[in-house]
Amino acid sequence: MSLKAIKYSNGNLEILDQLLLPAQSKYIDIKGVEDGWKAINKMQVRGAPAIAIVGCLSLAVEIYEEMFGSKQIFKQEVEGKLNYLVSARPTAVNMKLAAEELISLANVLAQDESVPVDKMKERFLNAIEDMLEKDIADNMAIGKNGANEILSNIPNGGSVRILTHCNTGSLATAGYGTALGVIRKLQEMNRLEHVYCTETRPYNQGARLTAYELVHDKLPATLILDNMVASLFKSRRVAAVVVGADRVAANGDTANKIGTYQIGVVAKYHNVPFYVAAPFTSIDLKIPSGDRIVIEERPDREMTHVGEHRIAAPGIACWNPAFDVTSADLITGIITEKGVFKPDELKEKVETIISVNQKL
Amino acid sequence: MSLKAIKYSNGNLEILDQLLLPAQSKYIDIKGVEDGWKAINKMQVRGAPAIAIVGCLSLAVEIYEEMFGSKQIFKQEVEGKLNYLVSARPTAVNMKLAAEELISLANVLAQDESVPVDKMKERFLNAIEDMLEKDIADNMAIGKNGANEILSNIPNGGSVRILTHCNTGSLATAGYGTALGVIRKLQEMNRLEHVYCTETRPYNQGARLTAYELVHDKLPATLILDNMVASLFKSRRVAAVVVGADRVAANGDTANKIGTYQIGVVAKYHNVPFYVAAPFTSIDLKIPSGDRIVIEERPDREMTHVGEHRIAAPGIACWNPAFDVTSADLITGIITEKGVFKPDELKEKVETIISVNQKL
Repeated sequence: MSLKAIKYSNGNLEILDQLLLPAQSKYIDIKGVEDGWKAINKMQVRGAPAIAIVGCLSLAVEIYEEMFGSKQIFKQEVEGKLNYLVSARPTAVNMKLAAEELISLANVLAQDESVPVDKMKERFLNAIEDMLEKDIADNMAIGKNGANEILSNIPNGGSVRILTHCNTGSLATAGYGTALGVIRKLQEMNRLEHVYCTETRPYNQGARLTAYELVHDKLPATLILDNMVASLFKSRRVAAVVVGADRVAANGDTANKIGTYQIGVVAKYHNVPFYVAAPFTSIDLKIPSGDRIVIEERPDREMTHVGEHRIAAPGIACWNPAFDVTSADLITGIITEKGVFKPDELKEKVETIISVNQKL
Repeated sequence: MSLKAIKYSNGNLEILDQLLLPAQSKYIDIKGVEDGWKAINKMQVRGAPAIAIVGCLSLAVEIYEEMFGSKQIFKQEVEGKLNYLVSARPTAVNMKLAAEELISLANVLAQDESVPVDKMKERFLNAIEDMLEKDIADNMAIGKNGANEILSNIPNGGSVRILTHCNTGSLATAGYGTALGVIRKLQEMNRLEHVYCTETRPYNQGARLTAYELVHDKLPATLILDNMVASLFKSRRVAAVVVGADRVAANGDTANKIGTYQIGVVAKYHNVPFYVAAPFTSIDLKIPSGDRIVIEERPDREMTHVGEHRIAAPGIACWNPAFDVTSADLITGIITEKGVFKPDELKEKVETIISVNQKL
């Protein structure tokens, strides 16, 4: 059973406290938006999709048993609470987008005179619950598409070794994961020989979070350091690299956790196929290429300290870019919930699919 | 003034306690072989050449004031004490080689009837003191040869950005350093714009030791993580990579700290010249190529813990190769004390120089 970091049913929500990982696995109750705000603000939940889901579900919990005197009261309350949730981590764009979508739904329902207040609340709750289900369903589709793509090059039912970077699993999404979803699917198909995860300095998401998920799910897995990828490719046949994405530009250039670009270069040199697993929501066709993506530089302390323990010489300057951009020519394919696309066909295929969906 | 980690004069020896670095800079007195043994065994000194020098100098300190009744007694005492010093870290091959050389010198002197006991001791002490001076002189020659080589491609007195990996400076050698010696020389020539050093997981020699030396010597320097090299090359023009070597094979293949090979691949992709700085003592013409070099795998704990603090998920398996082999085709040149050689001319040139020296 794949790790569930977000557990929701019928107005009850529990989340795995990521601040205690990997030492301790403890679920905390989220009893309403106050708890949701705190969990997001304290980073007990992290990862853009996961933050949005937990924020919205905390609102579902809050209003689940509540009776509303009028549609106007309902609309005002959810609007205020959604804006409050956005303020927990203002840079988390997914929470903001989800809040805008739900506020707009509340407006539409408020104006529709055929909808009474109890029906309004029911449809609003359904919309939130659908978010969780849709995100997991998209990830499972990514997993299936990616696994089939990778296996299409492997003859006779052989199994594969995969390398991944950073954390893209249940701890970063609503569940199952994107790149880690592909790996989970390979395991379900009994075609995963081994998975290697990189430590992912400076925040060690690979060593702390991906490794935690791999141990939890009992996948055959080994941790390597970020400087060992080339040696791994030289000494063992690795069938593919699969990584996540923060943002994919129209030409396929992909911004992702620092270190991804280097793995792309090293994979190219060793002829290891390199895949980006990303839902449509991460593909931004308005950005023509990766040159336009500004790389956030983060504080030195992330590099110089582990907890309170200083690990670098005092006085040394640091360069700490949070992300890098892997150029499209290093990417074999972009794995989405709708299929796997080569970087140079991405824009056309995504536009076609979106326009077909809008016509439906 | 470049950092001096080993200070010796006239029978007095002080070394910088590397266990306290980078938090604290404290020199400890080495009053004889007992102290020398402890410093090596406790890793207050590390780096193969530095261990040998400190071991032998501790013997010089021990016998400096001592009077010997006979040449036989002298020979027996130094032989016993050198073997004792080798036992402090049996895998440190340089200490073993230095001990063998000095024992053989003691035998030659013991058999030479024209040499009285006081002269025997004097010549023995000189041989030890020469080791220190020769190692530093070789490193300074490496520095000069490397700096001139790198600058030969830079027009009009321009200055350069250099990347290095691991620690190859005063903290790993008798002084000045090999790859770090090249960087020190560029600074002395006023041609160093900036040096970047990698953290060098898992033991963090770059962040702890190289960064410490760079801050000490006031070189313009920035620490990066091992997964940032490709991003650095993409965003800033770097004139060359200079790394050290544990062993160079006859064809130029080079075993060095884990991560070196990956930097070689990434440098090739970005057309950044890649140099190995290595004294003749690190070149082993008996090894035809890097395939023959066995890679030591080290304990998981180096990867999963920082001090007592666990940083990886419990239960995850680790792969922890201590070294890797950079293939000769990724190496622009091997910088030695006798000149800079292309990998494919290394064997011939080294053999010629050694045979000329033997004839002299």
